Amino acid sequence: VNSPPASIGLSLELVDTPALLVDLDALDENIRRMAQAASSYGVRLRPHAKTHKSPLIALRQIAHGAVGVCCQKVGEAEVMALGGVMDILIANEIWGASKLARLAALALQVKIAVCVDDAQNVADLSAAAEAYDANIEVLVDINVIGDIRTGVEPGESALRLASKVASCPGLHFAGLHAYAGKAQHIRDYSTRQSVIKHAVELVATTRNLLEQQGLQCPWITGSGTGTYRLEASSGVYTELQAGSYIFMDADYGQNLAADGGPYRDFENSLFVYSTIMSRPTADSAVLDAGLKSSSFDSGPPHICGLPDVEWVGGGDEHFNVRTPGARFPYALGDKVRLIPGHCDPTVNMHDWYVGVRNERVEAIWPVAARGCSR
Amino acid sequence: VNSPPASIGLSLELVDTPALLVDLDALDENIRRMAQAASSYGVRLRPHAKTHKSPLIALRQIAHGAVGVCCQKVGEAEVMALGGVMDILIANEIWGASKLARLAALALQVKIAVCVDDAQNVADLSAAAEAYDANIEVLVDINVIGDIRTGVEPGESALRLASKVASCPGLHFAGLHAYAGKAQHIRDYSTRQSVIKHAVELVATTRNLLEQQGLQCPWITGSGTGTYRLEASSGVYTELQAGSYIFMDADYGQNLAADGGPYRDFENSLFVYSTIMSRPTADSAVLDAGLKSSSFDSGPPHICGLPDVEWVGGGDEHFNVRTPGARFPYALGDKVRLIPGHCDPTVNMHDWYVGVRNERVEAIWPVAARGCSR
Repeated sequence: VNSPPASIGLSLELVDTPALLVDLDALDENIRRMAQAASSYGVRLRPHAKTHKSPLIALRQIAHGAVGVCCQKVGEAEVMALGGVMDILIANEIWGASKLARLAALALQVKIAVCVDDAQNVADLSAAAEAYDANIEVLVDINVIGDIRTGVEPGESALRLASKVASCPGLHFAGLHAYAGKAQHIRDYSTRQSVIKHAVELVATTRNLLEQQGLQCPWITGSGTGTYRLEASSGVYTELQAGSYIFMDADYGQNLAADGGPYRDFENSLFVYSTIMSRPTADSAVLDAGLKSSSFDSGPPHICGLPDVEWVGGGDEHFNVRTPGARFPYALGDKVRLIPGHCDPTVNMHDWYVGVRNERVEAIWPVAARGCSR
Repeated sequence: VNSPPASIGLSLELVDTPALLVDLDALDENIRRMAQAASSYGVRLRPHAKTHKSPLIALRQIAHGAVGVCCQKVGEAEVMALGGVMDILIANEIWGASKLARLAALALQVKIAVCVDDAQNVADLSAAAEAYDANIEVLVDINVIGDIRTGVEPGESALRLASKVASCPGLHFAGLHAYAGKAQHIRDYSTRQSVIKHAVELVATTRNLLEQQGLQCPWITGSGTGTYRLEASSGVYTELQAGSYIFMDADYGQNLAADGGPYRDFENSLFVYSTIMSRPTADSAVLDAGLKSSSFDSGPPHICGLPDVEWVGGGDEHFNVRTPGARFPYALGDKVRLIPGHCDPTVNMHDWYVGVRNERVEAIWPVAARGCSR
């Protein structure tokens, strides 16, 4: 429905706002760095595509060595498959007859794997696979962080469920899914490290238990942008599913690295471009990108080049800021780049990426799986 | 891109999730109640369409006496006009040559009004109107709440800007826009009342000043779902622009009414339908509607019928809850209705409304202006 906010060749300052900008140099550099890290640790990389929702970006990751992508929803996987991605893990549980039918049908087109944490769900998945004569790879999701989240308990519960999977037609038990979600945003490095160390021990114990019972676990996947080096170097995980690294949320900028300095493994490559649309006082401004252009769930966006700006309110379409004690440095009509607090839900609000290099529009890409929540 | 999660005639429990449900009885009742309230106070009603982003819902409001709609963005107004809405106020400032050209072109199709708070913006708007030989109604936006927000100061600043508007070709000065945004969610009734009383005084003083100078103000608009009776009964406001009343955010349920009881003028008519997809413990559950299906900026959604549920985490596609001390009452695969904390940005995540009456799907409406942020 929405037309793109720019066309190829336009100068950045002429891009209409709000717009979702991608710095193509930074994007390419992030893709390269993560691919190199995975390679150097000897693990596979399967980036999570829920971050970008774009098969074009997925194919760039795959061109640099990624084995495929993760998705959260069948609808996302359908869009990835239509866009040429041939190997997809749904890193999530899928419930409901219509979704399971779509999943099984998709497994006839591309390689499909999915997570489970319940025996009835395994039975339903098997029935769907049989109805389509499909083969689906299955990972048992284990909860290695103790929070209320998806996944069975490590150990005996995982063994029972893996045995069930192995006995079901149309399904192939392939290994374990163990994602320490909460650990990604723990600020302190040593705390983050100890949480992952404990998770890795639970994964290893579970893997050993299953393999003693003849259930091989060649595929152990998890990790995220906040902890990828820890799982990669564990000797237990075989695959990383980090996704946010490609854009870098403002929130990750609050994490501390191993040396105690700020976490700077990747560059901010995603921005919401926004116009100054009101100047209530000398030290304040209203921008045209509010809650419908940038997700505030991990805090408000940052303004590039203005570290001391203070968020003072806003609404659906407004982002109101102050620079206490200093003149707000942009005039009415000027445009600025915002760094979203949380990229994934921010991307999901937009229909188009505007790819920019050297201050010029180089690519217009649809956010093809936007809103594919089913 | 996304197909609807249901078809007409389907039973509610077969609607796929996550889905945006509208209880049509509650929607119709909310439309009727606000129309009746405006009528009883003798003020016009121009509901804000940024809430629903649907010309079909706008036309239902107009059929009950609304004079037109408000929008925030030119893109929303374009969609409303295409859908048959003939009288639109952009209750916001519009910056940028391309947006002003679209606004002027639209004013040749339907009646268009817009807000201003800057003299240069008035000049730009006038140039665009002249280029299209269009006539645009203009309201001077005044800041009556003292926050950092759009709007000039009441009094002399408003007079200067109104005079500028009146002198510009293509523009017609029509009155004042004065929206006390922050007041909408003040919990305590008497505080809310005194904030609006002060705002009304500022509006009246400004109106009197302008009218003494020959600048008539037949159109004074503002108000929202949290304060509409206060502006409606002020004798100063001539028009209400409340929007959220049609759905009712969970957040408004925290407001207190004049009698000290909970604010219950309207019914919750908007829900996110969600499936229980994991049951980590007896007192907890993971639902399939996370940050990409419901906006968390005003807090997490509520679960219908479970007032004591506690939000304990989640992510892009998960909503994790506990019922401490009690068994979580729904089983895996069951579906529940969530009441969004903030409806407007929640609607903006979805492509379809599923209209339900008597537990049966009666209407499938596109969220036609979804993502129209420019």
